[in-house]
Amino acid sequence: MSPAPPKTLSTVRAFDGVLHRFQHDSGVLKSSTVFSVYVPDTDDQQLPVIYYLSGLTCTDENCAQKGCAFGPLRERGVAMVFPDTSPRGEGTPDDAAYDMGQGAGFYVDATEGVWAERFQMYSYIVDELPETLKACGLPLNLNACSITGHSMGGHGALTIALRNPGRFASVSAFAPIANPTAEDCPWGQKTLGAYLGSASSDKAKLHDATELVKSCEGFSAPILIDQGASDNFYKTQLHPERFVDAAKAKGLDVTYRLHEGYDHSYFFVSTFMRDHIEFHARALKK
Amino acid sequence: MSPAPPKTLSTVRAFDGVLHRFQHDSGVLKSSTVFSVYVPDTDDQQLPVIYYLSGLTCTDENCAQKGCAFGPLRERGVAMVFPDTSPRGEGTPDDAAYDMGQGAGFYVDATEGVWAERFQMYSYIVDELPETLKACGLPLNLNACSITGHSMGGHGALTIALRNPGRFASVSAFAPIANPTAEDCPWGQKTLGAYLGSASSDKAKLHDATELVKSCEGFSAPILIDQGASDNFYKTQLHPERFVDAAKAKGLDVTYRLHEGYDHSYFFVSTFMRDHIEFHARALKK
Repeated sequence: MSPAPPKTLSTVRAFDGVLHRFQHDSGVLKSSTVFSVYVPDTDDQQLPVIYYLSGLTCTDENCAQKGCAFGPLRERGVAMVFPDTSPRGEGTPDDAAYDMGQGAGFYVDATEGVWAERFQMYSYIVDELPETLKACGLPLNLNACSITGHSMGGHGALTIALRNPGRFASVSAFAPIANPTAEDCPWGQKTLGAYLGSASSDKAKLHDATELVKSCEGFSAPILIDQGASDNFYKTQLHPERFVDAAKAKGLDVTYRLHEGYDHSYFFVSTFMRDHIEFHARALKK
Repeated sequence: MSPAPPKTLSTVRAFDGVLHRFQHDSGVLKSSTVFSVYVPDTDDQQLPVIYYLSGLTCTDENCAQKGCAFGPLRERGVAMVFPDTSPRGEGTPDDAAYDMGQGAGFYVDATEGVWAERFQMYSYIVDELPETLKACGLPLNLNACSITGHSMGGHGALTIALRNPGRFASVSAFAPIANPTAEDCPWGQKTLGAYLGSASSDKAKLHDATELVKSCEGFSAPILIDQGASDNFYKTQLHPERFVDAAKAKGLDVTYRLHEGYDHSYFFVSTFMRDHIEFHARALKK
């Protein structure tokens, strides 16, 4: 399907570059959606791209406003794309809880109930968003891309990268939900259960980074994961070490850093954003 | 008056430092108020301090979340204090407009009407906040301080510095309301009129940076002002060049930078935050 052309909602100058915000009618989400793209000033018409997937309750705006990403992106000559975290708007199902429905798409293609029609964030990120970006008139090389994300977005970044080997030069995550099908991950039990029928199904395991890495083939991109040791969700929801151990057992190039005192907030994300951008820039410019 | 001791509301780790948030019962504001302080990790028990005064509608949190200040503060070994912009809470007068009442204290000591009892932000910033900071147990040297701010907070920074020569090692402002008593500054006409009786009164002129600089004595601190050329308020409210021209005529050390394409948002503030912190750090460490 050829996507509808995006409409520019706003442009704002920041750090010798421009943050563009676009709206378009998404075919796979069956709703209007928005995304933001930060493009540093450049003479290069082929800037590499990092996709940033946000966490629960977020939109395209949270990281753009609070992530401290633009300075490092400008220094490295890399663009960053910030999609929304779920479909929204009239006719889109929702749930009163913060961890279901709008703001909580979990980057899966839902198959169940009211969610199945629009909650197709996996296909949106993997297929429709890159196609839509081509129509934005920005100086991007969409073949040179990496992916990162925070919490639910870290889950999305890892699973999307692992399911598409060769597609991303590198992948990273801030405090990812790394083993959502585990019984001790209430978020995964709830949402993957609702969106995909059961968190223990084979369908759900295709959205579990720890399960995916055990059987991945042909995946060689470097992986960076940062985790705050004082993150309330670290031991109760995230379980990043399970992914790291499985990735190491598989011989993957994974770096894991546990940071004393850091929590789950954007103060944690912004602190280590520069490191992630430099990590991706090195892989993208090889 | 000896201020009530502050209570810690939260501490969050960021950029190898800690953002502390405090609440205390303010004697001059006659209400409970909050402020935040970012302190980079240090063995030095005498860190210099920059006060950051926020703009209309803001609280202590806007710049802490969106200002991209912590990285440069950590690099330079300087702390930053973020007060609220007005008194708040039960019994505090307000106005339905965004530019009056709560969130719009304008850093003056109000003398009129319902505002006179609590809207005493000048005295709070100049006197009570530094005294309160002494009771926080932080490794600060409150005698080594500079001051900055955005928009209404830029107005506050310039006027407070000019009225207290020798107190601040340096002063800077992002898109300040630089001549609020002018007839072509609707914000100043409205708020200084309401808080002080008339924007053309002598009382109001004590809160107008352009008026103050014309008659200042003994002021030698360096001044830095950044302004976005695409800021919607630049020509209609801010008038920074009037201040700059008056300061130059007075022989003050003022640097003014007009940045093509930049607007009035925190994207503008965050872009130039590093420059301001480095500017103040040089003055503070002389």
